[in-house]
Amino acid sequence: MSLFGDLISTVFERRYLSSLSGQSDKRPPQELAIDLLGNHGEVSGGTLATLILDRYAAMDIDQKRAFFEFMTHELEIDPEQVIATLEAYKEMPSKGSYLAFAAACEPRRQELARRLNQVPGATGQLVAMRKDLLGLLRDHPDLAPLDVDFKHLFSSWFNRGFLVLRPINWSSPAEILDKIIAYEAVHAIDSWDDLRRRLQPADRRCYGLFHPAMADEPLIFVEVALTRGVPNSVQVLLADGRDSITAQEADTAVFYSISNCQAGLAGISFGNSLIKQVVSDLSRDLPALSNFVTLSPIPGLNRWLDANAQAKPDTPEGEQAVAARYLLEAKRADGLPVDPVARFHLGNGAQVHAVHAGADISENGMAQSNGAMVNYLYDPSQITKNHEKFATEKTVVASSEVRALSALADNDS
Amino acid sequence: MSLFGDLISTVFERRYLSSLSGQSDKRPPQELAIDLLGNHGEVSGGTLATLILDRYAAMDIDQKRAFFEFMTHELEIDPEQVIATLEAYKEMPSKGSYLAFAAACEPRRQELARRLNQVPGATGQLVAMRKDLLGLLRDHPDLAPLDVDFKHLFSSWFNRGFLVLRPINWSSPAEILDKIIAYEAVHAIDSWDDLRRRLQPADRRCYGLFHPAMADEPLIFVEVALTRGVPNSVQVLLADGRDSITAQEADTAVFYSISNCQAGLAGISFGNSLIKQVVSDLSRDLPALSNFVTLSPIPGLNRWLDANAQAKPDTPEGEQAVAARYLLEAKRADGLPVDPVARFHLGNGAQVHAVHAGADISENGMAQSNGAMVNYLYDPSQITKNHEKFATEKTVVASSEVRALSALADNDS
Amino acid sequence: MSLFGDLISTVFERRYLSSLSGQSDKRPPQELAIDLLGNHGEVSGGTLATLILDRYAAMDIDQKRAFFEFMTHELEIDPEQVIATLEAYKEMPSKGSYLAFAAACEPRRQELARRLNQVPGATGQLVAMRKDLLGLLRDHPDLAPLDVDFKHLFSSWFNRGFLVLRPINWSSPAEILDKIIAYEAVHAIDSWDDLRRRLQPADRRCYGLFHPAMADEPLIFVEVALTRGVPNSVQVLLADGRDSITAQEADTAVFYSISNCQAGLAGISFGNSLIKQVVSDLSRDLPALSNFVTLSPIPGLNRWLDANAQAKPDTPEGEQAVAARYLLEAKRADGLPVDPVARFHLGNGAQVHAVHAGADISENGMAQSNGAMVNYLYDPSQITKNHEKFATEKTVVASSEVRALSALADNDS
Amino acid sequence: MSLFGDLISTVFERRYLSSLSGQSDKRPPQELAIDLLGNHGEVSGGTLATLILDRYAAMDIDQKRAFFEFMTHELEIDPEQVIATLEAYKEMPSKGSYLAFAAACEPRRQELARRLNQVPGATGQLVAMRKDLLGLLRDHPDLAPLDVDFKHLFSSWFNRGFLVLRPINWSSPAEILDKIIAYEAVHAIDSWDDLRRRLQPADRRCYGLFHPAMADEPLIFVEVALTRGVPNSVQVLLADGRDSITAQEADTAVFYSISNCQAGLAGISFGNSLIKQVVSDLSRDLPALSNFVTLSPIPGLNRWLDANAQAKPDTPEGEQAVAARYLLEAKRADGLPVDPVARFHLGNGAQVHAVHAGADISENGMAQSNGAMVNYLYDPSQITKNHEKFATEKTVVASSEVRALSALADNDS
Repeated sequence: MSLFGDLISTVFERRYLSSLSGQSDKRPPQELAIDLLGNHGEVSGGTLATLILDRYAAMDIDQKRAFFEFMTHELEIDPEQVIATLEAYKEMPSKGSYLAFAAACEPRRQELARRLNQVPGATGQLVAMRKDLLGLLRDHPDLAPLDVDFKHLFSSWFNRGFLVLRPINWSSPAEILDKIIAYEAVHAIDSWDDLRRRLQPADRRCYGLFHPAMADEPLIFVEVALTRGVPNSVQVLLADGRDSITAQEADTAVFYSISNCQAGLAGISFGNSLIKQVVSDLSRDLPALSNFVTLSPIPGLNRWLDANAQAKPDTPEGEQAVAARYLLEAKRADGLPVDPVARFHLGNGAQVHAVHAGADISENGMAQSNGAMVNYLYDPSQITKNHEKFATEKTVVASSEVRALSALADNDS
Repeated sequence: MSLFGDLISTVFERRYLSSLSGQSDKRPPQELAIDLLGNHGEVSGGTLATLILDRYAAMDIDQKRAFFEFMTHELEIDPEQVIATLEAYKEMPSKGSYLAFAAACEPRRQELARRLNQVPGATGQLVAMRKDLLGLLRDHPDLAPLDVDFKHLFSSWFNRGFLVLRPINWSSPAEILDKIIAYEAVHAIDSWDDLRRRLQPADRRCYGLFHPAMADEPLIFVEVALTRGVPNSVQVLLADGRDSITAQEADTAVFYSISNCQAGLAGISFGNSLIKQVVSDLSRDLPALSNFVTLSPIPGLNRWLDANAQAKPDTPEGEQAVAARYLLEAKRADGLPVDPVARFHLGNGAQVHAVHAGADISENGMAQSNGAMVNYLYDPSQITKNHEKFATEKTVVASSEVRALSALADNDS
Repeated sequence: MSLFGDLISTVFERRYLSSLSGQSDKRPPQELAIDLLGNHGEVSGGTLATLILDRYAAMDIDQKRAFFEFMTHELEIDPEQVIATLEAYKEMPSKGSYLAFAAACEPRRQELARRLNQVPGATGQLVAMRKDLLGLLRDHPDLAPLDVDFKHLFSSWFNRGFLVLRPINWSSPAEILDKIIAYEAVHAIDSWDDLRRRLQPADRRCYGLFHPAMADEPLIFVEVALTRGVPNSVQVLLADGRDSITAQEADTAVFYSISNCQAGLAGISFGNSLIKQVVSDLSRDLPALSNFVTLSPIPGLNRWLDANAQAKPDTPEGEQAVAARYLLEAKRADGLPVDPVARFHLGNGAQVHAVHAGADISENGMAQSNGAMVNYLYDPSQITKNHEKFATEKTVVASSEVRALSALADNDS
Repeated sequence: MSLFGDLISTVFERRYLSSLSGQSDKRPPQELAIDLLGNHGEVSGGTLATLILDRYAAMDIDQKRAFFEFMTHELEIDPEQVIATLEAYKEMPSKGSYLAFAAACEPRRQELARRLNQVPGATGQLVAMRKDLLGLLRDHPDLAPLDVDFKHLFSSWFNRGFLVLRPINWSSPAEILDKIIAYEAVHAIDSWDDLRRRLQPADRRCYGLFHPAMADEPLIFVEVALTRGVPNSVQVLLADGRDSITAQEADTAVFYSISNCQAGLAGISFGNSLIKQVVSDLSRDLPALSNFVTLSPIPGLNRWLDANAQAKPDTPEGEQAVAARYLLEAKRADGLPVDPVARFHLGNGAQVHAVHAGADISENGMAQSNGAMVNYLYDPSQITKNHEKFATEKTVVASSEVRALSALADNDS
């Protein structure tokens, strides 16, 4: 009688509620939403919420847009109310005056989302709703405030303290493994046999962060290879037919793929927590591990070379030098690195450790970086210091080897 | 490898973080809080949050009050900022202008609570923090806005969709049963043997609502007796040495005790959900059940008699008549029943089914209602209708028998 | 902290013991076995057992045969001892004399197997050991007594009361699903997508029997289709792209594939228990189910036609008639049906319900029965009666339709 | 959907079978048993087994004795059959002849027990049946062969490889904790609060061995105190209100109480396995632990002093000397120590480490050993060597300190 089992069983309850409610109430969802926001929602809230979510799921994109317009514009704040309650609060701060101000500031669409979220499975559906919304934003920028509210709510709901780190392996339910295949964003998984090669060998690990209300949906996951020495190519790491080692033999943990799974949670960052906790778990289980590195793509390299009208190098050394220089010197207007993966790991307190030519010769790898990859190093003793330097002075900490490579490229150019 | 197990293991992680952080950083918690709210919090957030929560736990009541004053007044909204951003948003609604307005409206203490909540176990500590705050509110009403923010956050975090209903029985962990003994608020549990009599017999059930981040703490629980016929006395229901029946023999489920467990969640209602879901679960498991009733105290009866200078009746019939009249006619200024338990069940869509004299002859039962108790009936086919009538017209639906008893009392008085 | 988790963790312990013991002790396994049977085994038994099992696993087939010869002939009973202790027991029945007799009758290889079984994972390895032995028996019939002892032990260890029925579905661990693909013996599963079609739709079920000491290995499993009406073809049942129905809509449960998984447990029957318990579970969960039937192959039909020099029929009707006649009339010398699948289901109390031509047009289906299949019906009210008739009078109970078809074939021939 | 949950659910199935079968079949249980042993048992075996077990449970002691007489004498071997099949096997060893011999040697009561064991919950009932039998043996020694068969079966069923070590703590189900209170045999547990003191503090542990078919019944359990230094008194160890330490601070694990739980499993030893595995688990979790000792009673000391007409010493030193001499020198006719606890631990490879006067001043402790207790030391590096010496030469290994104390006593006497 695990909590997990209980969570699963509530999904059945949900289906049951669905089957009850679907047929009867023919009112438009906007009207149902207003009803749910009213007092009567307390007793029949579950039925109303189920009905609205089921209606939403059946909508086409235009109907969805109309529903979002309703949420954005009909369930909006009343500026005069904000000002009136603010004045009253300033005049006489009290429970009542603050409550009135807080209520006036929060558009009713936030309360609608909370009330929808009272039925099992609703959380995942609301996340999917924001995914739809994000798809519409470019052409319908007036919906942006609704997105701001979704993001605000989700930041609270998906607070780090509510998330659970779980290992994902060959003992995991097939329905979760399905998601790993679907969501792997860095090095695509072709088949169940390919998945097995990522999960089953003794020198492979995978971890995901989960939210209890979406127990079969990872939010983000990381794939880890346990190796002897720091690897310089993803082909070698993922080679079919390679010999595996025992976990105890490894001295290095390589984070070679990190994938966000929920488009509807865009902008809510989990990666930092995930890496920190995986480093901590692996350290405890495998005391022989002394290096924690990534083997990361350099997605912006070729674009940067093109933008700067630089030729792509034709030797491995040249490739390394150019990649090093890009990582250390290519900056945005705000002074931060151009490369998004670099910003992520450096922001977490990692440092640039090594660059490798010919390290990802897949079509994608060649297209984005001519095959070059980079190891970022997570050195527990340096993480805080690196992070400070990066956050305050935008300093990119790198190994002397990478600095030397970069200098080489400078001289060349 | 259950989710539950994973949750438990994170508690150990927390203890480990605690042991690391406690000694080193001597800054006052207010300063640590400001640091946690800053950008650096991203990397070292877990350590800072742990440190602040540990410091808080060791504070005396004056230090706590000082910390609450800091949260209330130092992490307060800036009214001018609210007005400026509101004007900008009105002028030109956009993602940026709405984001600025939303940020200005939300005091930073809310973000502080969310950042504290990133470490395992924090949720329970924040709930305990609000409990402390509630104790201080009467003498320090200026702290009320902080309480409003806590309640707002908790309403979001303890959204119905995140809660899990779990049976509590003699197979439950002792650490959860400990809480049942501690939190039973209606009919005190004296000992483990007394608890066993409430949980182990085939005709007893208990259910609690849990939040995944506080997995060993029920939020609210209900004790249920399965009986033949509607019982008229709690003594009979809880009699030591009584004969139990099998669950299949029962035609009635009696909710004889509902206890809220978390003082820090005051004002966030779970009872309605709990009863609805337990009715639904019991119906599915035991199709022979045809009545769902409470056996409830009448906490305001004697107080009302005293306030109206009425003599306490000296016959069972008189007792019944007076109780019926109280439940049907004693109203507050707003037209709702004086009795809080009546308001709760009637608001949920129940109806007054029967009243009984001498039904709770404990010291407490005699003091509050001269021993009288009441059955509220949850009739699935009437719940919505009852609720509507009560919500819109404040009508108290009652059985003809209770109405007749009440009329009797009217004639007598 | 589930029992399951504990079982898993013991597997790690086992690996740890393995890593300790493997290198040091170079004695031949026969000598280690004698040591394990001695008194010293009590303290160092776990190490010895691990060592012997690891040595065994690394043996080639000749070494295995030699080890089996050792077990058969060196750890054999001593007939004189049997007679002497039997005489003493007859003379003076007592605890001591019976103990001596019982010890003399049981060859020491049985105790060896029990002592090997003290380490985690050993049970599965002993089952695999018998699989090896069964492969050698034909050419080495002198090993038969060892097989008798293995089977005797396994009958005790795999006693029905120790087995657990578990649903197998898309939430099951991939490592168990792996086994389903590997062990499906009736209608091969080609791929994970094929497996998904068997497990994931709402109108499909699968159940396996498991032993707690082999928690990730099903012993036997059955695949079930929930249908409206009794199906007459496996192609329709397993059609890619078919529409599924909800479980609640089904009136019939079809057991269309039953597979034994462990060659080393040959001769120990689980099928009867499995079907009975699945019928019982499905009845409880889905009260609308009124038919429990199989859709079974007729593996001996073509062989029988050939043996009787009968032409294969060339119309569906002819096919049905011939199949009916075969099932009802083709008997072995002992009076039981020639067809092994028929013997299994009829022995369990099922009856022949309907025969279908063109029902399995796979290569295998055509080869064995020209495409014909049969529904056996499990009618709870008739099972005991059918079984009695079959067990005492060898009567094959069949529907009037099948009896009529068979009569048709009789007339034709 | 854990294995554990599945096990639990089968218990409900059992109750359901019980309710079905109880009323109808009025035949005497002996007749039912013969029926169960027949061929018909295959289909209706579950019903018959349930019926027999339920009938047995309702018997008075005379009826039980009669049922045991039936099993002993009616389901006995046939000596002529044994001899005939033995001759045939000797003549022509084959599968058939060995099978016949094995069948002849095994009394049918063993098969009866196996067939009874096919229903959920039966294993525990069969263990309880043997408990009844053991109570009758003294007055009915003719039943001894039945006991030999029970013990033989249980040795196979409760093979070490089938048992699971589980921690027992304040998160364990109350129904298991109930058993700990009931079964604690060394230092009685008075109440749930007393139990909490044994389980909840950070420096206490408890572990039990469980069989999957009796998942809520420990077979044996050990209580462990984590301490700094080796303790010399159980009063100090169990003092109410003592200060606990963290597990990480401890250098010593003290096994201060080991209790067998199932009288019906008498003679089947689990203690050795339990201690070994707990030592292994604790070592892994708490690397700072360097001593593994017991704090054990000396149950035979006073009896031995009396038998040897020796005065009880009146100083602590004298007490220690006498206890040391008893442990080292008091031997049975077979050369093994008189003291049963000493035989157990020394046989496991422990050594006598220290003796303490006034270490258990409870009534029981004073009565059996005048308050003296002993630490046996489990030194992983010496266990095999100690065991060998004890097993082959009956040498009691002791610390020099204990040897010196014993010599002192020798000189005194």
